[in-house]
Amino acid sequence: MSVFTPVSQSQLATWLTTFSVGAPVGLEPIAAGIENTNYFVTTTQGRYVLTLFERLPAPQLPFYLGLMAHLARHGIPCPAPIADLSDRYLSELNGKPAALVTRLPGASVDRANVGHCAALGALLGRMHLAGRSYAGYLENPRGMKWWRSAAAEVRPLLDPPWQELLDEELHFQSLHRFPDLPRGPVHADLFRDNVLFDDGRLSGVIDFYFAGVDCLLYDVAVCANDWCLADSDRDPRLDPERTSALLEGYRALVPLGAAEREAWPALLRAAALRFWLSRLFDYHQPRPGQLVRVHDPEHFRKVLTSRIESPAPAWNG
Amino acid sequence: MSVFTPVSQSQLATWLTTFSVGAPVGLEPIAAGIENTNYFVTTTQGRYVLTLFERLPAPQLPFYLGLMAHLARHGIPCPAPIADLSDRYLSELNGKPAALVTRLPGASVDRANVGHCAALGALLGRMHLAGRSYAGYLENPRGMKWWRSAAAEVRPLLDPPWQELLDEELHFQSLHRFPDLPRGPVHADLFRDNVLFDDGRLSGVIDFYFAGVDCLLYDVAVCANDWCLADSDRDPRLDPERTSALLEGYRALVPLGAAEREAWPALLRAAALRFWLSRLFDYHQPRPGQLVRVHDPEHFRKVLTSRIESPAPAWNG
Repeated sequence: MSVFTPVSQSQLATWLTTFSVGAPVGLEPIAAGIENTNYFVTTTQGRYVLTLFERLPAPQLPFYLGLMAHLARHGIPCPAPIADLSDRYLSELNGKPAALVTRLPGASVDRANVGHCAALGALLGRMHLAGRSYAGYLENPRGMKWWRSAAAEVRPLLDPPWQELLDEELHFQSLHRFPDLPRGPVHADLFRDNVLFDDGRLSGVIDFYFAGVDCLLYDVAVCANDWCLADSDRDPRLDPERTSALLEGYRALVPLGAAEREAWPALLRAAALRFWLSRLFDYHQPRPGQLVRVHDPEHFRKVLTSRIESPAPAWNG
Repeated sequence: MSVFTPVSQSQLATWLTTFSVGAPVGLEPIAAGIENTNYFVTTTQGRYVLTLFERLPAPQLPFYLGLMAHLARHGIPCPAPIADLSDRYLSELNGKPAALVTRLPGASVDRANVGHCAALGALLGRMHLAGRSYAGYLENPRGMKWWRSAAAEVRPLLDPPWQELLDEELHFQSLHRFPDLPRGPVHADLFRDNVLFDDGRLSGVIDFYFAGVDCLLYDVAVCANDWCLADSDRDPRLDPERTSALLEGYRALVPLGAAEREAWPALLRAAALRFWLSRLFDYHQPRPGQLVRVHDPEHFRKVLTSRIESPAPAWNG
C-alpha cells in the first residue's frame, strides 16, 4: 500500500465535521498509488475517497481539483471533489493538504477488448470537449521540460545502448513539436487501472493527479500504449483492431485531420518516452512507506523501441 | 402526467450534442409534477432528468440550479445540474428554458416510519449547513407576500367559516414573524414524494423549484406537516414519536434554542397555511396538459386547524 500519513478513525471523524457528508462508518487504506495517501471512506451518506497529498506541489492542487469538479459537472464520470462547509475543496488533515472526492462504482479491467477501447475513445472525446471551457491552466508537469530533467538523473544508470536510445529520442522529440494541434486539459495517465467499468459500462475515470494542458491527441497516445498492446503486457506492438476502436470512438466526437495524422507516430513515441522515464525514476528511487511494487521500466523501453521501429496503426479516411 | 411541451427523440438527440453526456438511449415522460415538463433521459453515459420550465419566472431559475449545484458539490444527494459545452446549466429546448440534471436512485415512501423521519432530519440539517455558503438569493416565493395575493384570489371561493379561518391565520402570522431566527436557502417543499430512499438509505432529495431563503426551521415545519402526521393522510395531528425523530435528527447538527422553541408552533401553522393556499389555488385553476390529480385542499385546512387547536410536540431539553 501507500500510506505515508496514517489517519485514525477519530482524526477522520473530527475532520468530517467540517463537511456535510454525514458521520464516518468506514475507513480503509487503498493499496494502489505511489504519489498520495488514499483511503476509502464510507459515511452515513455515501462512499468517498480521501486523499492526502504527499509530494504534489501545493500550487498545482487547485488545478487538479478544479478540473475534476469541472468535468464532473459536465457529466464526465470522474471523482467529484466535495466542498467543505467553508466551500473549499482543499483543506488540511494531519499536516497534509487533503481532499475528499466521490468514489465511483466499478472495477478496472486487466485485459481490454475492442468494446472497452471504443468506450474509452468516446469517453476521452467527451472529456476533451468538456475540458475546453475549463479556465484553469497547468502546463503538463510530465512534459518535455520534465523529460529533460528526469533523463539527466536516470541516464547514468542506463546501459550504453539505452543511453543512446534516450539521447536520440529526446532529440527526435525536440524536432517534432506540434504547437498547432488542439490543446487542452488532458488526463495524461489514463491506463487501464485508472478506468472503471461497471456491468460493461465505463463508470469512472480516476486519478487526475498527472493532468495538465497538452496536445489532446497526446492523451489518446498514452491510452493506446497501454490499452491497445498486441498481447497486453508482453508484446509492445499495437493491436490494429483495438487501436482502431479507440481512435474511431474518439474521432466520432473530436475531428482528426491531416495534422493529427502526421503527429500520431511521434506522439505515441512521446507517450512511451514519458513512462519509460518515470518508471526508471521510480525504480531507482523507491520511497519509504511505499509498498506497491514499482513497474519494470523495461516494458516502456520496449514500447518505445516498437513505436520507433513499426509503423503505428492510425485511423481510416 | 404533466407534459406541457412534448420533446421528440430527435429533438432530444440534437439538444444533447451540446452536452458531453453521450448519446440518448431512452426518453420517458414523468407523470408527477404540475409546474414543469419532466422527462427521464437515459444516455450511453447515465441517467438524467430533463426539465422544461413552463411557468417559473426566468430570473428565478439560476437561483434554483445554482443551489442544486452548490448542494450537490457539498455531498447533499440532490440532482446535480449538468453544464453544457458552453458551461451553462440553463439553455433552451423547444422554446422553453431547459436543464438536464442527474437522476438519483431510490423511490419515495408512502408511509414514513421513525427511521425515515430521523434520516430526513439529519439530511435537512446537513443541507442547511451546506446551504450557508451559497451566494444566491431569492426570497421564498411562497412566503407571506404570496400568501396575501393567493388569499385574495381564493377567499371568495371559500365557505364563510374557512374565510374567517384564513383571515385569522393571516393576521396571526403577521403578528408572529421571526426575523432573528437563522435564515438560509430552504427546500420548502420536502414532502415524502420529494425524498428518495434506496435500500433503506436516504438517497435523494429532489424538486427544488419552490426553494428560497427563509427561516431554516420553517423547512423542518413543512416536513413535520407531511412526514409526521398521526395516521398518514387521515389524522392531521402530529405523531409525537416521528416528530421527535425528525427534530432530534435535525438538531444533532443544527442547534435549536429558546427562540426556535417559541417559533415552532407558529411555523407549523405557517407551513400548513402555505399549502392550504396553494392547493386551493391549484384546485380552482387546473391547467391544460395537466393530468395529475390535484390534491384536495381540505387536507391542509384540517392540518392548519389541528396546529391551531393542539399543542405541537417539540424537542426535549
